[in-house]
Amino acid sequence: MAHLHPRTELSRESIFAQMSRLAAEHGAINLGQGFPSNPPPPFLLEAARRAIGTVDQYTPPIGLPQLREAVAEDLGVSPQEVIITAGGTEALHALAEALYGPGDEVVLLEPYFDVYIPQARMAGAEPVMVPMRLTDRWEVDLSALEQAITPRTKALLLTNPYNPTGSVLSRTEAEQIVALARRHDLWIISDEVYDELYFAEPPISLRELAPERVFTVGSAGKRLEATGWRIGWILTPPGLAPQVAGMRQWSSFCSAAPLQAAVAEALPVARREGFYEALRQGYKARRDLLESGLKSLGLKTFSPAGTYFLTALLPGLEAEALVREAKVAAIPGSAFYIQNPAPKGLFRFAFCKTEAEIEQALERLEGYLKKVHS
Amino acid sequence: MAHLHPRTELSRESIFAQMSRLAAEHGAINLGQGFPSNPPPPFLLEAARRAIGTVDQYTPPIGLPQLREAVAEDLGVSPQEVIITAGGTEALHALAEALYGPGDEVVLLEPYFDVYIPQARMAGAEPVMVPMRLTDRWEVDLSALEQAITPRTKALLLTNPYNPTGSVLSRTEAEQIVALARRHDLWIISDEVYDELYFAEPPISLRELAPERVFTVGSAGKRLEATGWRIGWILTPPGLAPQVAGMRQWSSFCSAAPLQAAVAEALPVARREGFYEALRQGYKARRDLLESGLKSLGLKTFSPAGTYFLTALLPGLEAEALVREAKVAAIPGSAFYIQNPAPKGLFRFAFCKTEAEIEQALERLEGYLKKVHS
Repeated sequence: MAHLHPRTELSRESIFAQMSRLAAEHGAINLGQGFPSNPPPPFLLEAARRAIGTVDQYTPPIGLPQLREAVAEDLGVSPQEVIITAGGTEALHALAEALYGPGDEVVLLEPYFDVYIPQARMAGAEPVMVPMRLTDRWEVDLSALEQAITPRTKALLLTNPYNPTGSVLSRTEAEQIVALARRHDLWIISDEVYDELYFAEPPISLRELAPERVFTVGSAGKRLEATGWRIGWILTPPGLAPQVAGMRQWSSFCSAAPLQAAVAEALPVARREGFYEALRQGYKARRDLLESGLKSLGLKTFSPAGTYFLTALLPGLEAEALVREAKVAAIPGSAFYIQNPAPKGLFRFAFCKTEAEIEQALERLEGYLKKVHS
Repeated sequence: MAHLHPRTELSRESIFAQMSRLAAEHGAINLGQGFPSNPPPPFLLEAARRAIGTVDQYTPPIGLPQLREAVAEDLGVSPQEVIITAGGTEALHALAEALYGPGDEVVLLEPYFDVYIPQARMAGAEPVMVPMRLTDRWEVDLSALEQAITPRTKALLLTNPYNPTGSVLSRTEAEQIVALARRHDLWIISDEVYDELYFAEPPISLRELAPERVFTVGSAGKRLEATGWRIGWILTPPGLAPQVAGMRQWSSFCSAAPLQAAVAEALPVARREGFYEALRQGYKARRDLLESGLKSLGLKTFSPAGTYFLTALLPGLEAEALVREAKVAAIPGSAFYIQNPAPKGLFRFAFCKTEAEIEQALERLEGYLKKVHS
């Protein structure tokens, strides 16, 4: 019988989907997959209800004109440099196809976000992983990054704020990375889907430092708490949007038309009405709740400066046992490492959940730790 | 400066997008791109307005469970064999990635639908084109199809009902194609997005003849007149859905969640309330209007048995001149051919437009033909 192509080996169930499934099966509190417990804001929902029945047919693959304009306005770029995509995932897929192919390498950091590797391999390229340094905080190892670059390297793929570590690049780190890319004439893919989720200084957008070589990935789903709507974007260097948009034309053709129209209406409202400030305040409170709770259980945590993820060390514990016995789902650190060893006992917790869920998860963890250590 | 990957040469603006753009620029009636002038049915729109605000976060990449069940129920298959995709386009992309790669060939017919070629090439495979026979009707040339098969051939890619020709496979043709695929142990990708748009006998679903090797592609956008919603599906041979769904997981992760929920509600309503019968009646009337109009202008037409497309010969006319001067947009036959020559003067007209638009397009064509021939 005919066989599937070997690249379908990239098709394993993602750890996020797997932990969500196990959480549901075992009645666990799901601090695994990063989708918010909050509903999207009313101004977004109302805009969508109005768009349904008015914007229902194909849009241009590059995006609905009013959404390209709204994104450009919000981010201070030209609408000509904006491509609308089916979420950040499709943005990253289109960029992989547009930037590298067989024989090429792309350098990225470990721990990494899971889609990067199969997308690089589908495009035919080899991912080269550079581990982050973990002391009391997560740090980019600049010299290891430079050593990983070869004549085959086409791009650096970075995330800022960074999932899963929650770290945010300092200005010095950002400038050093950009200088590195210039020295070796590399593209930079900067995955900035958490751009509005920070707890100290606003993150630096790498594109501002090197507009000629940085592709920025953004996400309305992350910003507006509608991860299932699949509305994301790419900002390209000047002149490159049509060719990159062509790549997404062959994957999903265009993003969901009425939801594009809704996001176009919602982006200026979110900015004007201080939605992101409120979002950050809410997440900061929940980060603090989770972090202080884990600390009070004697666990080592790495305080995130952005994203809705917190990494912590739970030495000797296993993710599957945690979900089955403690009834708390979290993502094991090993899920974020493919070439280098994960720090022992590393877990990622999502705090985009209700305070009640976080409190109950902490109680369950406390009980479980007592049982395990007794 | 760093370069984009050469595969971005596949990124030219599609002929459909291009003709829609020209139509808008020149105030032309757009009988080019196949999106309906009708709005989607009220039961679909109401279901979507209800789903907005209730189903807004990630769904499993393989699809929202209730939509997988609704598709399965409607098509008489197991929900385990259904994958929900971001439209037919992403279904075809995922299948290309799942079935073939570098060194492989996929055999398809000419005229072809434009996404097939770049998708095959993005997967690394070579498309091999077999021209359809055009006499008084479009026919599959079975012996040419068999001659095109080599040891590298992994799949046949067919469309039924067929865009752009509007032809529908007879039972004999379908059985012969399936026998051919069995003889050479090939996969069949059967693009059946127009499955409910037929004007005589219902089309045969190839999967019924060879469930072990046929992947069927379907589209809620085509069926329910919401082409911009990007909700499609794949029916797989038993046991293969998880691996193929893995491929779409890396392009758009999941389809728009609230729109999946809406389609799940709408599919049984459409079936129960005779929506497709009404759709066919409406399109049959418009097909007849367009066809008799073109015939009365002395033009040769090929009556479609399905889809909302009609092919006709307009010898000596050019698509760009047509849109600029006659102010009628249609797709030139050459857009559907890449290896073999297109029949001279071939055009595809979409009749998923209002009767008023079709009538006005015919008047404009009449005036233009008089001018050209005087």
